[in-house]
Amino acid sequence: MNNPQLDKHGELQHLLTTEGLPAKILLNILDRASAFMGSADGGEIKKIPLLHGKSIFNIFFENSTRTRTTFEIAAKRLSADVVNLNVSSSSASKGETLLDTVDNLCAMHADMFVVRHSSSGAAHFIAKHVAPEVHVINAGDGRHAHPTQALLDMFTIRHYKKEFHNLRVAIIGDILHSRVARSQIHALTTLGVPEVRVIAPKTLLPTMVEHLGVQVHHNMAQGLRDVDVVLMLRLQNERMQGAALPSAQEYFKYYGLTKEKLALAKADAIVMHPGPMNRGVEIDSAVADGVQSVILPQVTFGIAVRMAVMSILAGK
Amino acid sequence: MNNPQLDKHGELQHLLTTEGLPAKILLNILDRASAFMGSADGGEIKKIPLLHGKSIFNIFFENSTRTRTTFEIAAKRLSADVVNLNVSSSSASKGETLLDTVDNLCAMHADMFVVRHSSSGAAHFIAKHVAPEVHVINAGDGRHAHPTQALLDMFTIRHYKKEFHNLRVAIIGDILHSRVARSQIHALTTLGVPEVRVIAPKTLLPTMVEHLGVQVHHNMAQGLRDVDVVLMLRLQNERMQGAALPSAQEYFKYYGLTKEKLALAKADAIVMHPGPMNRGVEIDSAVADGVQSVILPQVTFGIAVRMAVMSILAGK
Amino acid sequence: MNNPQLDKHGELQHLLTTEGLPAKILLNILDRASAFMGSADGGEIKKIPLLHGKSIFNIFFENSTRTRTTFEIAAKRLSADVVNLNVSSSSASKGETLLDTVDNLCAMHADMFVVRHSSSGAAHFIAKHVAPEVHVINAGDGRHAHPTQALLDMFTIRHYKKEFHNLRVAIIGDILHSRVARSQIHALTTLGVPEVRVIAPKTLLPTMVEHLGVQVHHNMAQGLRDVDVVLMLRLQNERMQGAALPSAQEYFKYYGLTKEKLALAKADAIVMHPGPMNRGVEIDSAVADGVQSVILPQVTFGIAVRMAVMSILAGK
Repeated sequence: MNNPQLDKHGELQHLLTTEGLPAKILLNILDRASAFMGSADGGEIKKIPLLHGKSIFNIFFENSTRTRTTFEIAAKRLSADVVNLNVSSSSASKGETLLDTVDNLCAMHADMFVVRHSSSGAAHFIAKHVAPEVHVINAGDGRHAHPTQALLDMFTIRHYKKEFHNLRVAIIGDILHSRVARSQIHALTTLGVPEVRVIAPKTLLPTMVEHLGVQVHHNMAQGLRDVDVVLMLRLQNERMQGAALPSAQEYFKYYGLTKEKLALAKADAIVMHPGPMNRGVEIDSAVADGVQSVILPQVTFGIAVRMAVMSILAGK
Repeated sequence: MNNPQLDKHGELQHLLTTEGLPAKILLNILDRASAFMGSADGGEIKKIPLLHGKSIFNIFFENSTRTRTTFEIAAKRLSADVVNLNVSSSSASKGETLLDTVDNLCAMHADMFVVRHSSSGAAHFIAKHVAPEVHVINAGDGRHAHPTQALLDMFTIRHYKKEFHNLRVAIIGDILHSRVARSQIHALTTLGVPEVRVIAPKTLLPTMVEHLGVQVHHNMAQGLRDVDVVLMLRLQNERMQGAALPSAQEYFKYYGLTKEKLALAKADAIVMHPGPMNRGVEIDSAVADGVQSVILPQVTFGIAVRMAVMSILAGK
Repeated sequence: MNNPQLDKHGELQHLLTTEGLPAKILLNILDRASAFMGSADGGEIKKIPLLHGKSIFNIFFENSTRTRTTFEIAAKRLSADVVNLNVSSSSASKGETLLDTVDNLCAMHADMFVVRHSSSGAAHFIAKHVAPEVHVINAGDGRHAHPTQALLDMFTIRHYKKEFHNLRVAIIGDILHSRVARSQIHALTTLGVPEVRVIAPKTLLPTMVEHLGVQVHHNMAQGLRDVDVVLMLRLQNERMQGAALPSAQEYFKYYGLTKEKLALAKADAIVMHPGPMNRGVEIDSAVADGVQSVILPQVTFGIAVRMAVMSILAGK
């Protein structure tokens, strides 16, 4: 089967998932992002005319001001024209099919789509359908993938740890429903991280998650021991009303990241979170605001990584 | 009575309706749009600085992501600054009058308003009120007019049929409630189309529609015979709950465009639709996606036509 | 106590309130705005590249299309990139704290925040928290302050009256709930207006309002006598359902500005209103549209004043 993300020369045509992307492609994105960061210490991202005259459509079938904003800023820093479409309040409600909506936007000479959708596979579906000169970036589809989040996480890890091949990384929380976790696992294993652990209660783990190449832990004390990188996941509030979880308090007691639990990791371990955080649920404020937290640098790096992806796609 | 759309030199001051506009004005817009299309085969529309520094306000009292987007893209391709105002959620709800809202926007040095409103005549009302250097484009007012849609339809017809004077054109569907149909009829007759037919059940036809210069048909088999151009209208879902129509299924049976019915038209007839389509209601997918369909080129041409209108108005 | 709006050199770092700002700072903003107006007669505001490459975030926790639009236009005239965030529909609903939201936006390399919030003090709170190179403009916080509105009012007064030191100014309406009135009073007294009156029923006046340096009147006939400037306030519709006011009709009878009442002011008195107006409640249409009204010039001047504030902050 062809990789729908690569063209016949093996270059990136769409960014839909980190699954199946060669390490060379991932590293190329990280390197390009480094160039956009300017100095290595997180310097200023300047406005550059790389995408002048290009039209980028943010099509959000699922509302997300934060993610939409990071793509909007990245596109404007590249001098592109950005059109925001909140499709839930639009033609979809007039009975138009998804493909008709996409066809129409293509006919307006869109150069790139940034798509968020509640259905797994929506971005792939759109990517298969668009003209060859149009590029699709998946900004999150159902439980499936959120590749730019995983890439900015890889950028952050490389920024602080320099290498991937000697790391222990733990992903903690609702692995079952998390597109972020899936994309992180694929990126980490592709980039050569030898030990990726997931820590979660059984109700929040996919069946046969070991097949993704991870170690499974149900206990923070075991799972956090000697790790270099702690990747927290956001706990969706709606999960707590279901059968999966007893209560936010109990979750925090067993799986919330506190200073005490973090002390089990390596002394120089870094703590990451994709945001928005539920303080006091999955993470304690003392950790979120502590010296090991690199949660805000993640956001800054996220702009550079999205600029990198857009410029690589558009530069073809 | 003066034509409120023309200045004292007979040049376009506002675009409010195709009714009463001389053929010369209509053709000038189509010619300008052709220039923006670049090559004749639907090539790239480049970004040009014609409206740099101009402020264009999209004032949508009635929500329409699609139409708003096409105007936004057209304005950005002309390098204008675009401000989107969804007025229903704004001052209107604070009790401000329409004229006060418009006065305020004028005072912010708007150069052009693109207005959509559910009341027929709203764009005329605003155009009468603004300062002489401000231009108004009607993006749809009630059942009255939608001139840029009609103009992009004329552009599409000319693109595929070269001439207007030898054509038979059929407009099919809910003529009664359609501002698109009204604007199409005026444009077609002005441009010299000798035979314009409307095909609809009696409940969806305005009284004395013949006075607009059209032939009336209630039967697709008669109405479609030997036509060169088929203009489908969107069937508003809300109509189907009223007394005007029995059901979507029955409507489709009698007035939905299928391959069988389309075979009655000329072999090289083109099929158009303003979108969004109700597949299986007014049009069958086999026709919508068939070789005679020029529905997606319509969308591309629509950007060029809107750029043409904006640049003609601003260039005065 | 330090003034949180000024840096250690006494220059403007944030614009949060007119209270406590030296006259020199206020006049500097007005002078800069005059330069942006071009000619003295309200000429064109040209697009200038002063803020090219800067990112300005309009963060509106409280909806206001009009105010948001004026800031958006001002920022675009300065060539900044503008990102609009309607935060009520965003992360706030996902349980994120205000500080986390602000931290995240800072991490995206925002250069300036324009903040509207329903809580008094929100803009101060954010300003204390952001990095030293980020600037905050208060676009209205609860009942506390709305400094750009007061500054555009001062600009308007100076435009028509040339001087402040010889004026009588009356502020009329719901002083109690009005952030506009508070900001006007501080600006007027700082700029040397010798007589500032407030006219309102007792239920719409703050306790001990005299301590702000104003004369209190409950009667229009007394309060309007010989004033040079009449500053009307908007009556919030929701007040009229409470105990504070009997009815809109009765309010209009006693406190609505009519031609008859305005005749008590000086013959060349000017009438101002921050908009949107409730015609027939706080102001009669004959006055709103009359020769003494400068309500629409206020809007034009408002763009120049906001450009001035943004360019002074960014130019540091």
